[in-house]
Amino acid sequence: MQKTIPATDRGLAYGHGVFETMELRAGHLPHWPRHWQRLVEGCRRLGLPAPDRDRLETALLTDAPALGRHVLKLVLTAGDGGRGYRAPSKITPRWIVSLHPWPTYPATYAEQGVALRHCRTRLPIDSALAGIKHLNRLHQVLARAEWDDEAIAEGLLSDTDGWVVEGTMSNVFWIEGDTLRTPDLSRCGVAGIMRARILDWAAAQGIVTRIEVLAPARLQSAEGLFVCNSVIGLWPVRRLENHDMQIPSLMRELSQAVQEGAC
Amino acid sequence: MQKTIPATDRGLAYGHGVFETMELRAGHLPHWPRHWQRLVEGCRRLGLPAPDRDRLETALLTDAPALGRHVLKLVLTAGDGGRGYRAPSKITPRWIVSLHPWPTYPATYAEQGVALRHCRTRLPIDSALAGIKHLNRLHQVLARAEWDDEAIAEGLLSDTDGWVVEGTMSNVFWIEGDTLRTPDLSRCGVAGIMRARILDWAAAQGIVTRIEVLAPARLQSAEGLFVCNSVIGLWPVRRLENHDMQIPSLMRELSQAVQEGAC
Repeated sequence: MQKTIPATDRGLAYGHGVFETMELRAGHLPHWPRHWQRLVEGCRRLGLPAPDRDRLETALLTDAPALGRHVLKLVLTAGDGGRGYRAPSKITPRWIVSLHPWPTYPATYAEQGVALRHCRTRLPIDSALAGIKHLNRLHQVLARAEWDDEAIAEGLLSDTDGWVVEGTMSNVFWIEGDTLRTPDLSRCGVAGIMRARILDWAAAQGIVTRIEVLAPARLQSAEGLFVCNSVIGLWPVRRLENHDMQIPSLMRELSQAVQEGAC
Repeated sequence: MQKTIPATDRGLAYGHGVFETMELRAGHLPHWPRHWQRLVEGCRRLGLPAPDRDRLETALLTDAPALGRHVLKLVLTAGDGGRGYRAPSKITPRWIVSLHPWPTYPATYAEQGVALRHCRTRLPIDSALAGIKHLNRLHQVLARAEWDDEAIAEGLLSDTDGWVVEGTMSNVFWIEGDTLRTPDLSRCGVAGIMRARILDWAAAQGIVTRIEVLAPARLQSAEGLFVCNSVIGLWPVRRLENHDMQIPSLMRELSQAVQEGAC
């Protein structure tokens, strides 16, 4: 686990790199294949050579504690470079691995739901970078800086056209007519691993899913709304701005599946 | 001059920071007031406390060589932070100063002009980050990776609406009817220091300037086109894609003013 990196790293200079935030459980990464897949796609989109999978797995797990639950974060950058946007003709990526305690959130978050707000910060339409978990994350930083109220657990981000896309650190699902829906991420947003796990689980259960654009007004009439990521799991939303929301049975079912690791 | 930074720096994690690339001449920063102004504006927009000006100037110049011309780069980040987009309640910015040789470009670049291309990478419309020199620079990296032909000196970037905004590392000016024009940067792009110097110089000379949107087709009929930044100075464009361009006398005059440090 590196404590420092060279000041010449292109991850620092330009955000030329990607990262993954993973659940480490009893010395294993239960969702590693999905993280690996997104990592490789991110490398491809940013012109980085894909890492050697075996070597990377070894690097990730060598110092990993064998017991308990932790957050393992991997940052993969384009490595050292001179001044200037042009990458060296041979890129030698740098891996930065860090271990963090598994965060504890109030039990009420998963059981009774959380309060959300709409952020003013807008995500730009940017299909070149949409979906991947790259290091250019100023919109998330700006959006998360908009509120300081501990009673608000997450903020929703809309794109510059006004469609709701995701949370600052999470993906969003809503339920409408027994159908599980999540915003389209082809123009901006991060394609979360928990989002993919939930979509796959729902499909396997025969639950109808839809990926579509989401107008904010639609959430007023939705039967339910939740946010999710690999670390928080699934948080039902009990309040969005001044609007109270219900937690339908489908969401309870999903939440249980996430908590039991069934999806 | 720091060789390493902590791996927990928010500049690396999210690009939470700004930078300046400055001319250092005989131990002085001739355009420091302009760089300082942009730096402070960048800090304000990104929620970073403005640095102490005297301390920063001392840090920049302490190890600076007293002779010759160099590039001095300053990266200012939000400093250390834990995992998560939320910034610490007290941000302690980190300054990273590096010295680089003044690059030498072929003399023909400034005298006879350079060849340019249009890049496929599009700049997203993003007024929250427009103008400042922040560390989220993946679009510049992706655009610069589009070509490897040493005969092409720079690439032009258009936004997602199709307007030409800037070069990958430079600002753009064009001449039309004795008027000096440069693209509007209120929705995306970096407000370059050389661009500001040229606009001010032109105004002082009584040359009419216009800041406006630029459709690519307009460059076919422009009397002249050039790119500029603090390090390259001013490069006239003699060819854009397959279109040959002239170097009008106003551009020669401007080029001389830049070379003589008159602007």
